[in-house]
Amino acid sequence: MASSTDQNGQNGYVDVLGLEFTRNVIGSMGPDTWPRLREVMTALIKHVHDFARDVQLTTDEWMAGVQMINWAGQMSDSKRNEGQLLCDVIGLESLVDDITFSAATKSTSGLTASAILGPFWRSDAPIRENGTTITFDTPEDGQIVFMHGKVTSVETGRPLANATVDVWQASTNGKNSERLDCRGQDSKQRDCNLRGVFKTDSEGKYSFYCLRPTPYPIPQDGPAGKLLGLMDRHVFRPAHIHLMVCASGCRSLTTQIFDEDCKYLGNDSVFAVKDDLKVRFVPRKDDPRAELELEYNISLAKAA
Amino acid sequence: MASSTDQNGQNGYVDVLGLEFTRNVIGSMGPDTWPRLREVMTALIKHVHDFARDVQLTTDEWMAGVQMINWAGQMSDSKRNEGQLLCDVIGLESLVDDITFSAATKSTSGLTASAILGPFWRSDAPIRENGTTITFDTPEDGQIVFMHGKVTSVETGRPLANATVDVWQASTNGKNSERLDCRGQDSKQRDCNLRGVFKTDSEGKYSFYCLRPTPYPIPQDGPAGKLLGLMDRHVFRPAHIHLMVCASGCRSLTTQIFDEDCKYLGNDSVFAVKDDLKVRFVPRKDDPRAELELEYNISLAKAA
Repeated sequence: MASSTDQNGQNGYVDVLGLEFTRNVIGSMGPDTWPRLREVMTALIKHVHDFARDVQLTTDEWMAGVQMINWAGQMSDSKRNEGQLLCDVIGLESLVDDITFSAATKSTSGLTASAILGPFWRSDAPIRENGTTITFDTPEDGQIVFMHGKVTSVETGRPLANATVDVWQASTNGKNSERLDCRGQDSKQRDCNLRGVFKTDSEGKYSFYCLRPTPYPIPQDGPAGKLLGLMDRHVFRPAHIHLMVCASGCRSLTTQIFDEDCKYLGNDSVFAVKDDLKVRFVPRKDDPRAELELEYNISLAKAA
Repeated sequence: MASSTDQNGQNGYVDVLGLEFTRNVIGSMGPDTWPRLREVMTALIKHVHDFARDVQLTTDEWMAGVQMINWAGQMSDSKRNEGQLLCDVIGLESLVDDITFSAATKSTSGLTASAILGPFWRSDAPIRENGTTITFDTPEDGQIVFMHGKVTSVETGRPLANATVDVWQASTNGKNSERLDCRGQDSKQRDCNLRGVFKTDSEGKYSFYCLRPTPYPIPQDGPAGKLLGLMDRHVFRPAHIHLMVCASGCRSLTTQIFDEDCKYLGNDSVFAVKDDLKVRFVPRKDDPRAELELEYNISLAKAA
């Protein structure tokens, strides 16, 4: 797309508030602006203005955007972040996650890849014992998985004891958009069903029972769902399990692991899938509690 | 600023989620996307991604932005629009106002220039008689102005009868940020003080008494005020009177007129000042009700 700020003025419309206006807005920042903020705001103002000029944005269209942003804020609370979800559906959270992860780990290979936090993490999930379950209200179509693995240091290869593995996932009845973080959407699930924090043992091992993940829609009752509809896109996320892994002295990792057999793998509504994060669930033998098994080892980098 | 999406890859960092990622997000829009929405979202996604790559935006920085947007929504209601105000302090409303106005009026000279609506217009201001006042709780330092003028058609030069001139302004005690739209901030002002809608007579004339406007700060208790502080900028708007003028068969005009003697004329916190909109208040003779006078004629274009 040709930029409307092309100094040659070749875009065929009157550049009423052109580069000089934008320079004036950027130049209004005072001398006590924190340098990084100045850098970020300079680029933000430049790109926002260029966007408005590129598409010749009208006041009505801009106001529709303002209302969408205000609506996002009004739907957000301690358990829901619709502003974040709006960013997610245009790929921004995945992009900044990758920028941040790459900046911190340029020289480290073998590290477990990151993926976005998403809006559904909760800070108050209970600590549970290894080998126990996070699924308490298992739906009839749910398949139980025994998930286990080891947390190690990518630099030394050594196991990391006392690391926390915080896991959360949606229930299988994705069609009903039932998630714990939106209380009231699923009165059949108890609080903190499908959530738990596990601590690795002296060998760096963790284990728990969970559900084989299934695709689920992101919430459709707010601006992110509305925007997806306007863009003629589906609302589904491919089947995944969320993980947040922390160990003393290490850089914390937030990621998602994806069932390689899931049909939405190629068109995730929030663009979080990476090849490194696809996993295969295999049949579990001799365990009446689980049909499937997943070994997933996690490798963390030293904190900067 | 060099764009991070430069295909030559000359920017010295790993382009982890580069143009292909952005193309994928844009390409996810389905065939039933409304063409104008596709155009707007394509440019928005491109610029938002380029912004994130240009400054190597981190997840923490992005989340700070998300929280600011959610905060804006949470502070907004029917009487206050903080999402709009956030746009205003980075010049976006002035820019889109100018784009919209120019697109509609390219070939019409002599037309009164537009300026931004701002967040403080109210749809429920009372209709008042010409020659009456909008200032009921006049502060001691207030100077009364008799403002009057004619509304005409720019194409025919003829007066426009029955046009509505909706006027609103802040009180003089700008320091206290007292505005009617934020009830509770100024218990001394009655509802709809400094607001009124006037209808032009058969000669297209309107008239009313109001205050000589004084500079006032935009609200400092929300994200727009916070952002101004972070950018080391003042929060003041130069002295102005808001006008919204509508006549049957004409394109409605929203504008602001600025006291040419005001000290903030060169650095309006929301970048709305235009040379065409500067006015001079002159002494008023033989009127015990007003010290000053302002004649302001308004010229509207035919509706498209």
